[in-house]
Amino acid sequence: MAGNSFGNLFKLTTFGESHGVAIGGIIDGCPPGIELDLEAIQVEMNRRKPGQSNIVTQRKEPDEVKFLSGIFEGVTTGTPIGFVIENSNQKSHDYSHIKDSYRPSHADYVYEKKYGLRDYRGGGRSSARETASRVVAGAIAKQVLKNVKINAFTSSVGDIFIDKPYQDLDFSKIESNDVRCPDSAIAEKMITRIKDIRKEGDTIGGTVTCVLQNVPIGLGEPVFDKLHAELGKAMLSINAVKGFEFGSGFCGAKMKGSEHNDLFNIDGSTKTNLSGGIQGGISNGMDIYFRVAFKPVATLIQKYETINRAGEIVEMQGKGRHDPCVVPRAVPIVEAMAALVLADYLLINKTYS
Amino acid sequence: MAGNSFGNLFKLTTFGESHGVAIGGIIDGCPPGIELDLEAIQVEMNRRKPGQSNIVTQRKEPDEVKFLSGIFEGVTTGTPIGFVIENSNQKSHDYSHIKDSYRPSHADYVYEKKYGLRDYRGGGRSSARETASRVVAGAIAKQVLKNVKINAFTSSVGDIFIDKPYQDLDFSKIESNDVRCPDSAIAEKMITRIKDIRKEGDTIGGTVTCVLQNVPIGLGEPVFDKLHAELGKAMLSINAVKGFEFGSGFCGAKMKGSEHNDLFNIDGSTKTNLSGGIQGGISNGMDIYFRVAFKPVATLIQKYETINRAGEIVEMQGKGRHDPCVVPRAVPIVEAMAALVLADYLLINKTYS
Amino acid sequence: MAGNSFGNLFKLTTFGESHGVAIGGIIDGCPPGIELDLEAIQVEMNRRKPGQSNIVTQRKEPDEVKFLSGIFEGVTTGTPIGFVIENSNQKSHDYSHIKDSYRPSHADYVYEKKYGLRDYRGGGRSSARETASRVVAGAIAKQVLKNVKINAFTSSVGDIFIDKPYQDLDFSKIESNDVRCPDSAIAEKMITRIKDIRKEGDTIGGTVTCVLQNVPIGLGEPVFDKLHAELGKAMLSINAVKGFEFGSGFCGAKMKGSEHNDLFNIDGSTKTNLSGGIQGGISNGMDIYFRVAFKPVATLIQKYETINRAGEIVEMQGKGRHDPCVVPRAVPIVEAMAALVLADYLLINKTYS
Amino acid sequence: MAGNSFGNLFKLTTFGESHGVAIGGIIDGCPPGIELDLEAIQVEMNRRKPGQSNIVTQRKEPDEVKFLSGIFEGVTTGTPIGFVIENSNQKSHDYSHIKDSYRPSHADYVYEKKYGLRDYRGGGRSSARETASRVVAGAIAKQVLKNVKINAFTSSVGDIFIDKPYQDLDFSKIESNDVRCPDSAIAEKMITRIKDIRKEGDTIGGTVTCVLQNVPIGLGEPVFDKLHAELGKAMLSINAVKGFEFGSGFCGAKMKGSEHNDLFNIDGSTKTNLSGGIQGGISNGMDIYFRVAFKPVATLIQKYETINRAGEIVEMQGKGRHDPCVVPRAVPIVEAMAALVLADYLLINKTYS
Repeated sequence: MAGNSFGNLFKLTTFGESHGVAIGGIIDGCPPGIELDLEAIQVEMNRRKPGQSNIVTQRKEPDEVKFLSGIFEGVTTGTPIGFVIENSNQKSHDYSHIKDSYRPSHADYVYEKKYGLRDYRGGGRSSARETASRVVAGAIAKQVLKNVKINAFTSSVGDIFIDKPYQDLDFSKIESNDVRCPDSAIAEKMITRIKDIRKEGDTIGGTVTCVLQNVPIGLGEPVFDKLHAELGKAMLSINAVKGFEFGSGFCGAKMKGSEHNDLFNIDGSTKTNLSGGIQGGISNGMDIYFRVAFKPVATLIQKYETINRAGEIVEMQGKGRHDPCVVPRAVPIVEAMAALVLADYLLINKTYS
Repeated sequence: MAGNSFGNLFKLTTFGESHGVAIGGIIDGCPPGIELDLEAIQVEMNRRKPGQSNIVTQRKEPDEVKFLSGIFEGVTTGTPIGFVIENSNQKSHDYSHIKDSYRPSHADYVYEKKYGLRDYRGGGRSSARETASRVVAGAIAKQVLKNVKINAFTSSVGDIFIDKPYQDLDFSKIESNDVRCPDSAIAEKMITRIKDIRKEGDTIGGTVTCVLQNVPIGLGEPVFDKLHAELGKAMLSINAVKGFEFGSGFCGAKMKGSEHNDLFNIDGSTKTNLSGGIQGGISNGMDIYFRVAFKPVATLIQKYETINRAGEIVEMQGKGRHDPCVVPRAVPIVEAMAALVLADYLLINKTYS
Repeated sequence: MAGNSFGNLFKLTTFGESHGVAIGGIIDGCPPGIELDLEAIQVEMNRRKPGQSNIVTQRKEPDEVKFLSGIFEGVTTGTPIGFVIENSNQKSHDYSHIKDSYRPSHADYVYEKKYGLRDYRGGGRSSARETASRVVAGAIAKQVLKNVKINAFTSSVGDIFIDKPYQDLDFSKIESNDVRCPDSAIAEKMITRIKDIRKEGDTIGGTVTCVLQNVPIGLGEPVFDKLHAELGKAMLSINAVKGFEFGSGFCGAKMKGSEHNDLFNIDGSTKTNLSGGIQGGISNGMDIYFRVAFKPVATLIQKYETINRAGEIVEMQGKGRHDPCVVPRAVPIVEAMAALVLADYLLINKTYS
Repeated sequence: MAGNSFGNLFKLTTFGESHGVAIGGIIDGCPPGIELDLEAIQVEMNRRKPGQSNIVTQRKEPDEVKFLSGIFEGVTTGTPIGFVIENSNQKSHDYSHIKDSYRPSHADYVYEKKYGLRDYRGGGRSSARETASRVVAGAIAKQVLKNVKINAFTSSVGDIFIDKPYQDLDFSKIESNDVRCPDSAIAEKMITRIKDIRKEGDTIGGTVTCVLQNVPIGLGEPVFDKLHAELGKAMLSINAVKGFEFGSGFCGAKMKGSEHNDLFNIDGSTKTNLSGGIQGGISNGMDIYFRVAFKPVATLIQKYETINRAGEIVEMQGKGRHDPCVVPRAVPIVEAMAALVLADYLLINKTYS
C-alpha cells in the first residue's frame, strides 16, 4: 500500500533515500534459469547515472550494483534478487539550508505534512536517486523479455522537437549524443539549449518518446489493468512527469472515427497504427509507442523566496548539483519502467495457457 | 491479476458482459456507518446511461442498481457491498454479423488471440457497458469523500474547445446542456458538431477536464503509487482514452523552471498551481486538475472492409446503437474513477496516523 | 484488505449476509476455455446446503447458483464469473431477540465493536451461509484442476473417531451416509451421537480429514506462501475451525528425526509420507493430507445468560434452526477451500515456465 | 505472488540464501514517527541466532542488522526500511556433498523440480536462516504495537511437556534457561533430552505456545482474513511447522457447545476463554493464545541412503552444524511472526475509523 512496490508477478520493491547509506531493492518473481548479463545491467546504470556528460548533474556516483541473492553461478534461481547501490557521494551538508524550509515545487512540504517529519537531505525518498533501483530491475526485465525491443529517446527539449515519425529515425543513434536524440541535427540544438539554460541557472522541460517492438499479441488485462493504463502509471510514477499519451494520444481527440480506425491486413496486422499497438487494453502485435512529458527541474541556481516551517518568508539560493534538463537521464528510466510492465504482463499472460 | 479490480483499501471488483444477464460488482473496504443517499447514486447512473439525450446512443437501459449486501437500514456496515444491474435491452441479434469477423480498432481480435475465444455479443467484456459498475462505486466513494468536490466536464469535441482556464467556468452549468460543457456558447457548437458527425455515420473524439477541490493535504504514496500516477491509470483504464495530463501537462514540457515553479504563500498554499495540486505524488491542498483524451468511437455506421477468423477480407456495415461522441457520457465515468482513487488514498492515509 | 477475497491468480471475492437479499461472489482469473459442468457445481452446493438430512439444520434454502457472466455457451471466457444465490428463506423475525444482545461465542459483540454497528439478522456476514459462495468457486476450481482428486470426510465427532489410516478407507463411501464418514460402522455411531446431542439442545465438535491426490510436483511458494501455510489459512478461515495440522502434525512434534524422515525411492517418491506431501512448502508428488478441528456450534437450544448493549445481564433462549454438529456440512467446504488453494497455486506455477 | 512478502499494510519482503553474500529485507508501511530502540532489535536477533547456547547449532553468525533507510535520527520516517544481515560464516564447502543429491525430508528435491535448478549451499532459500529477517521486522512490529505483550515459550520437547495452563506460568522466566521454558523443572528435563538426542546424532520435535495480551478489540478481518487464519498462516510459514491450533484447538473438537461457550461478564470480557481471544475472526480483548507444532529437524548426523539427480541410491553422512531441536530458537520467530500479523491488522483497523 505504501507505494514502494511495482508489478504483480514480476515485482520490484525499492528502498532508500538520496543521502542515506544506500538505496536498493528486491525483485521478486523473476523466473528461474535466466543467464544474466551483468555487464548489460551496468551499462543501463551508466546511462542513468549522474556525471556522465556535461549536460547533466555533476554529482559523482559510481552507481555500482551489488547483487546479494537470487543469482547462483550467474543464473537466476527463482528466489528474490536483492541488490544494493551505495550512496558514496552524499554531501549532505549541501542540504542543511533546506532543513526548515520548503523548496517551491518540491516534495518537502507535502512529505512533512503527510508523515509529520522528513529526511530533508537531498530530497530523501522523493529524490530521483530512487530511480537507479528501477533501472537495475528494468535491465533484468529486459533480459526476461528477450526479443522485445525497447527504445526510448528524447523527442523534445523546450520547444525544440523531432518533426518526424519515429519510423524515420535510426534508433542506433540514440546513444551517439549526450541528449539521447536519434536525430543528430535536432540533438545539437537541444544540447545548445540545455547549456544555455544551465548558464542562466534555470532548467527546462522536455518529452521522451518510447517505442516497444516485437511485443507478443495478448499482453494486457482488461478492464482496469489495460496495458496502456499500467504503462501510463509506470511513466507517471517517474519524478517530474506531467503527462502520458500513447498512439494518437491527445491528437486522437481531435479526429474522426473514419480517420482514426486502423484497418486490418489479412495477417491481422493493421494498415495504420493510430491505436499505438494496443486495442481494448491488449497488445495487438503492432509497435507500441507513447510519449511522456517531463516538467523542468524545480531546483534553480537562482535566488528566490519561499517559506519555512514557522510560516515565515525566507530567501533561498539554489545550490547543489542538479540537472538543467532531466530528459536525457530519464530515457533509460522510461525504458526500465516499460520493461517492468512488459515482463510483469508477460508472466500474467502465462497463467491463461 | 486478471484486471477486474481497482483500488487497494476501497476496492471495486466488477463482472459482466455487455449482453449477458447482468453486470455488477463488489465494493470491498467501504467504511461502516455511512448513511447512503441511494438517490444520489441513481442520479450518477442516469448521467452515464444510454438514451439520455439525442446526442448519445439510443440503446435503452434503465440502469437501475440493485444492492444485495453491505447496507443495513440505509447505512454501510463495513461488509462488502454487492450490486447488480440487469441488462434488460440486450438485442444480441444485432451482433451476430460480427461473430466471425474483427471490427477495426475494436478489441475483437485481441480478445480472441488472448483467450482463444470471445463473447462477441456487443463487445462482451470490452464494452463500455462495464463502466456502469464504476459509476455505482464512484457514487458511493463520493459519499465517503464528503467535502471533496469533483467536477468533470467536456473541454473539447474535435477541434472545438473551451478557451478559458477552469477557474473562469461555472461548474453548476455542466449539467445544463447535453454535452456537459459549462460554457454555453461552446456547448452549442459542440452539440452541433456531434449531430453533424452522427449524420455522416461518423464519430469524433474529445477531451474531459476534471477538477478536484478540497482534497486533504497528504494523499498519495511515493514512489510508485503517486496520486497522479494512480489517477492516470484510473483514467487510462476507461474505454477509448488515449492520454492523460495533469497540472501543466504537456505544456509544462516546454517551460523553464523559473516559469513553472509554484511559489509559496505563507499559509502553505501556492501563488500559482502549475503543479496541479500534487507535489512528489502527494496532494498539497491546492486544486487538482487533469485532462483526459478520448479517441473517436470505432463503430461507424458506414461500410468498410475488415477480416474474419479465416483471414479473409469481408465487407461490414456498422449497425447497432452507438455514441457519435463518447465524451458527454464519459464525464460521470471520469468523476467516478477520480472518486475511487481519492477514497482509496484517503483510507491508505489513515494508516499513518 | 477487508478480508473478502481469497487467492492470488484464481481469486474469489464474496459478498452477502445471512438474511440479506442474496449472497454471491466474483471469481476472477479463471482460465478461459474450460467447459463447465454446471450440474457438478450444483451437486457440491447440495452437499453443503441446509436441510439435506435429519442431522443438519432444517433451514430450507434451494441454494441454486445463478451465473451472471464469464461463461459463454457453457465455456469459461477468461472474464470474471459473477454469481448470486438468493436467500429465499430468510425468516429474519427469528433473530429480533438478539438485536441488542450478544450471543456467547458468536461474533455479535466483536462485529459491533469493530464496525460500530451490525446486521444482527442471523449473524449477518459472520454466518456460515457465506460458505455457499466458497463452494461455488471451489466446484469450479475442481474443474480447473482436472486430475487432482480431493476427498474430505468426517474423521471424528466428539470422541468418536476413525482409527485407521486414510489409506485403508474407501472414499467412494463418503457420500453413502449423512455424516460423510467412509467407515460405515463409525458413521453409524457418529450419527447416533449427533442425534442424541440434538435432543439435549446441545451441539458437538469434530474433525474433517482431507486428502489431495495427484497434485503436481512443485506447487507452493517459499517462504511465506508455503503450500501448507495457504491451506492452513484457507481452513482456518472456515467458521468454527480451531486447528489445522498436516502430515505428521502435532504427533510429529513428539518424534525423532530418524523416525520422521521420509526416505526416497529411486523415482523420487518416498517410502513413508510423514511430510504429508509437502517439503519446504512445495508439493512433492505424494498425497497431501491434513486434518481440521471444528468446535461445537455456539447456538444451543437452551436457556442461558448473556449481556446486552447496555451491559445488562439478560436471559436468552436459543431459537432458530441450527446444526447440532457442523462437521458433515463442513466436508464440502473443506474440499472447496482446498481446491481454491490448489487452482491458485497451479496458476502461479505457470509463471515459472 | 512468489511468496517472499508477508503482510498487507505493514509488509515485509525478504531476500537471501543461507550461503549467499547477505540476507535482508524491506519493511514497507511502517508508520512514521516511531523512535526505534535499535538495541531491542538486536536482543531479538540474539535470541534467534545460532551458537547462543550449547543446545543449538554451533554455526557462528554475529547476525548484526544494518539498516540502510527509512530511519532518520533514530525515528521511522514512513519510507521503506531496508536492512541487510551479512552471512559472515558461510562455510559453503560443507555442502558440496549434497550438490547432486537430495536429502530426505529437505526441500532439495522439490526446489530442483520447481525451478529447474537450486542453490544447494546450505539449503539456499529454504534454509531457516531466512527467519533472521523476520525477527528484525518482528522486533520493529513489536515497537509499533507498544502495549501489546507477546510471549512465546517452549511448551514441549518430544513427550516432555508443561502440564499447566499458561496462566500459571511466569513469563519472566522464559529467558532464564536455554530451552526457553518458563517452568524450570520441565526446562531441565527438556535440556537433558535435547543433549541426549544430540549425542545420538538424532533430532527431536516440540511445540511452542504463544500468548498475546492487551490486544485491542476488533483486530481481524472477516471472512477470509480472520485473525487466527492469518496467525495460522504466519506460523505455518515457519520452517518445520506441522500444525497450529488456537484457543481450545483440537481438544475443542471433542467438546459440547454447552461446555465450550464462553459466557460474558457485564464488561464484555468472558468468564472462560476457550475461544482463545478471537470470535468470528476478530479479537475480543481476551488473551489470544495458540500452539505451534515443530517436527524434528531433518538433518541427522548419521549415515543414511538417499537418491541423486541420476536416480541412483547414494549413501550420505549428515555433516554441518545443525540444531538437535529447533524449538528453543523458534520461540523468537513465533513472536516475530505474531507481531507482524498484529501490526498489520492494527493498521488495517485504522481504515475503518
